[in-house]
Amino acid sequence: MTGSLTVVGLGPGNPDQMTPEALAAVTASTDFFGYFPYIDRLNLRADQHRHASDNREELVRAKAALEMAAKGGKVCVVSGGDPGVFAMAAAVCEAIDDGPAEWRDIELSVVPGVTAMLAVAAKAGAPLGHDFCAISLSNNLKPWAIIEKRLVAAATAGFVMAFYNPISKARPHQLDEAFDILRAHLPGSVPVIFGRAAGRPDEAIRIVPLAEAEGEMADMATCVIVGTAETRLIERTDKRPIVYSPRFLRESFQ
Amino acid sequence: MTGSLTVVGLGPGNPDQMTPEALAAVTASTDFFGYFPYIDRLNLRADQHRHASDNREELVRAKAALEMAAKGGKVCVVSGGDPGVFAMAAAVCEAIDDGPAEWRDIELSVVPGVTAMLAVAAKAGAPLGHDFCAISLSNNLKPWAIIEKRLVAAATAGFVMAFYNPISKARPHQLDEAFDILRAHLPGSVPVIFGRAAGRPDEAIRIVPLAEAEGEMADMATCVIVGTAETRLIERTDKRPIVYSPRFLRESFQ
Repeated sequence: MTGSLTVVGLGPGNPDQMTPEALAAVTASTDFFGYFPYIDRLNLRADQHRHASDNREELVRAKAALEMAAKGGKVCVVSGGDPGVFAMAAAVCEAIDDGPAEWRDIELSVVPGVTAMLAVAAKAGAPLGHDFCAISLSNNLKPWAIIEKRLVAAATAGFVMAFYNPISKARPHQLDEAFDILRAHLPGSVPVIFGRAAGRPDEAIRIVPLAEAEGEMADMATCVIVGTAETRLIERTDKRPIVYSPRFLRESFQ
Repeated sequence: MTGSLTVVGLGPGNPDQMTPEALAAVTASTDFFGYFPYIDRLNLRADQHRHASDNREELVRAKAALEMAAKGGKVCVVSGGDPGVFAMAAAVCEAIDDGPAEWRDIELSVVPGVTAMLAVAAKAGAPLGHDFCAISLSNNLKPWAIIEKRLVAAATAGFVMAFYNPISKARPHQLDEAFDILRAHLPGSVPVIFGRAAGRPDEAIRIVPLAEAEGEMADMATCVIVGTAETRLIERTDKRPIVYSPRFLRESFQ
């Protein structure tokens, strides 16, 4: 008997930003695989089982979840944010692609969620208001040269950028390197948003010009959004400024 | 007395993909501005008022909503998907930027939602599994030359692409032009996903190789995802294939 595997996005952390579809998928599952803090967010029943593991264990975790589903389990793999954005959905697909043929018979579903850049953008205004891209700054799975190439391509073609995995203890210098690369291609006035725990009680949103952006303004849980030359700041009295990227393009940019 | 304006993302269309936060924002508001079909999704009370308008009326709609909020209204502007992704949040910010000073005192908030590309990606597997970008193919607000430049930049730098506003009655040829541009830079085998009404009863997901992709496979409500040379297809018996972009980069691509 083949079971099911559902990869669920829990959203950015605030329970009010988790969809009813995600909640229903959690309620219907019996075994939960994921990174500790995501599993900790769930209010599991006594008949539901935790299989929490550490960060950077994605492929091992995906295989364990698939093995249990192949035996008939109702398995749930959880991610923060959206599972398809630098999260568990791709790891599960990689494991299926390389795994035994019977894993392809598992009833696989992916439940989308609000990914970090959308939650951070909402707090700032509308910085992703025109064409944008999402880049993981981690070079654990791809060479730094490719990341550099993508940063330059995005900056010169006018994409707003959202950085996931901007920094970690093992990679303390890459965000500063990324800012240095961007400063060679974008005006120093371009707004940079550091968004941490958007929508949660410990939320911290900081907006600085690219000229002053520093790697130490971010940690592992920060999503960094870098505007374009078109991105604008609206100053307000007694309130954080609004950052937005207009939907239209000024003639001057053409 | 200054009121409030909340820009709310209703998600892709399935009510189960709308967050509790979005539902609470709707419940707390009295006046609703938005494109007809989004307003039609709401179950409004007798004391809640509809101000529905046509597509392409975004800036006029934003100004009307801000005027009412400035007079003390509890105003809600609704978007499908996420309001910050090619939707109403940027239009509201543009109107504030150009509008009277008192509009900056309005209590502005943006409630994020699941945007179309995440819902479509979830149905296909994990096509956005590595670095990706989102591009509006509409040249109503930017010149086509800029869109061409971004397509080439994204394809040559290895970004997965999600196209919003891929086609309309007024712009019937642009999606075919986009595919032609991409075929010059990407292998014909690259998977292209046409996702319409993901998660709704009339959902339609179609996967074709780039060599066979045609503009007529999409309509206004379709989100199109184009993979990279790294994106893979997992064939299954009696099931739609899984499409995913691995998190890692093969040595051959470097």
